[in-house]
Amino acid sequence: MNRNDFRRWTRVEVRWGDMDAMNHVNNAQYFVYLESARIEMFGDIGLDQPMREDQHGFGLVSATCNFRKQVHYPATLEIGTRVSKIGNTSFQLQHGFFHEGGDELVADALSTVVWVDYAQGKGIPIPGDMRVRLEALV
Amino acid sequence: MNRNDFRRWTRVEVRWGDMDAMNHVNNAQYFVYLESARIEMFGDIGLDQPMREDQHGFGLVSATCNFRKQVHYPATLEIGTRVSKIGNTSFQLQHGFFHEGGDELVADALSTVVWVDYAQGKGIPIPGDMRVRLEALV
Amino acid sequence: MNRNDFRRWTRVEVRWGDMDAMNHVNNAQYFVYLESARIEMFGDIGLDQPMREDQHGFGLVSATCNFRKQVHYPATLEIGTRVSKIGNTSFQLQHGFFHEGGDELVADALSTVVWVDYAQGKGIPIPGDMRVRLEALV
Amino acid sequence: MNRNDFRRWTRVEVRWGDMDAMNHVNNAQYFVYLESARIEMFGDIGLDQPMREDQHGFGLVSATCNFRKQVHYPATLEIGTRVSKIGNTSFQLQHGFFHEGGDELVADALSTVVWVDYAQGKGIPIPGDMRVRLEALV
Repeated sequence: MNRNDFRRWTRVEVRWGDMDAMNHVNNAQYFVYLESARIEMFGDIGLDQPMREDQHGFGLVSATCNFRKQVHYPATLEIGTRVSKIGNTSFQLQHGFFHEGGDELVADALSTVVWVDYAQGKGIPIPGDMRVRLEALV
Repeated sequence: MNRNDFRRWTRVEVRWGDMDAMNHVNNAQYFVYLESARIEMFGDIGLDQPMREDQHGFGLVSATCNFRKQVHYPATLEIGTRVSKIGNTSFQLQHGFFHEGGDELVADALSTVVWVDYAQGKGIPIPGDMRVRLEALV
Repeated sequence: MNRNDFRRWTRVEVRWGDMDAMNHVNNAQYFVYLESARIEMFGDIGLDQPMREDQHGFGLVSATCNFRKQVHYPATLEIGTRVSKIGNTSFQLQHGFFHEGGDELVADALSTVVWVDYAQGKGIPIPGDMRVRLEALV
Repeated sequence: MNRNDFRRWTRVEVRWGDMDAMNHVNNAQYFVYLESARIEMFGDIGLDQPMREDQHGFGLVSATCNFRKQVHYPATLEIGTRVSKIGNTSFQLQHGFFHEGGDELVADALSTVVWVDYAQGKGIPIPGDMRVRLEALV
């Protein structure tokens, strides 16, 4: 997995407070960074919020992160994202974490996201216009 | 997956601040809860801190969580943990999240943990006494 | 300031992840604990959420915390709260942090809270029934 | 209080996850931002970590924040800092939060910091070279 595998990038400034008592960035914080990457990507496909006014929106159903290198403050991370699978009601994102300007994979991750009708509490088919934009990020 | 699959339990009081702008517990927070479960389990096997004075300690190398039900404040969660695999330098934990007294699986998770020599920065064999205690949690 | 100064109590289990790279509970986390205390106190005076459906609700306008002793995981804190001032549109809370069962003041704090019409974006007089319940916590 | 009152600036990218269930940046998060400002300022006066190897370092003893305007993702904040008081063992910082390029005060804050001998657990006089650099930030 390298930088060429990804279609869009999110820049994250590591905060001192992102570190834990082990003096490195805490594992849960990587999922906060991934959330920033997803939220930005939702913007790319036409959603400026995770949920629209009609209460349709994206819900995260699964997240995995593989931690390869410890990260310490100060650092700037670049998170690459690509759409790695598109189903009827859900899609999968693959992510790679790199130091700004670096080529070593610091962490990699997968997120599975469902298009949800929050009023009904269930997954529904991804709208056609979003699907087209998701396909552009494969 | 049900309550009988797990060997030890961690109780987590959900804080109002654990919720995000979607008005449910944020996904990254589940990994904070899982960390609490791991830290407690490390105590069971003889470590009261993630790293000992000789700089040997546990390092998380991978974490996955499947989010099945939204959780809202106020709530008390019980996180079940069992050892699902033991290798030479690493082991895997499986976790289930339930509401206090409830039987519905709210989320489930896997964590892979390596026994690390932090000074050398590499995985080393799990000490025999820890291995025995890990086996008791299978 | 001692335990007798307070009218209601909130119990907080310190999580390992509340600690920072200094290996003690991070300062910002005390404000998360204070938020838990406020949210519980809002329940006492008839609000189960910070904002009601009419978009009237409480807004925090100022918070101060004095850190007297470092706190380390594992710990259970008890946060005492009393209403220390009631104005027309706002009130002030005073808080004391103690270890469970302990009498030493670990930290103390003040919060100033305004009753807000979020639709108009401005403070409005505290409703009479809430004022009565606030007075019971002086 | 305006931009001219401050001597150094810290830039903070608001993360989506910094918001809470009220859909605005959570109050505790402002203290995380202030910590970033302090940590950067410690760098200005010769400390690249909050604690040196001799276990002397800075400890926060008090923090206050006045919340004037709600902040929502996406936003970039600029936090101005100046040294507002210097004592024998402690100093006070004053901070102002502004939107990037904006002149409206979003929040303001005070932090009181003590120079601590962590081994002895008590405040000690601020070293002369640090005092000189603190004076340059008045």
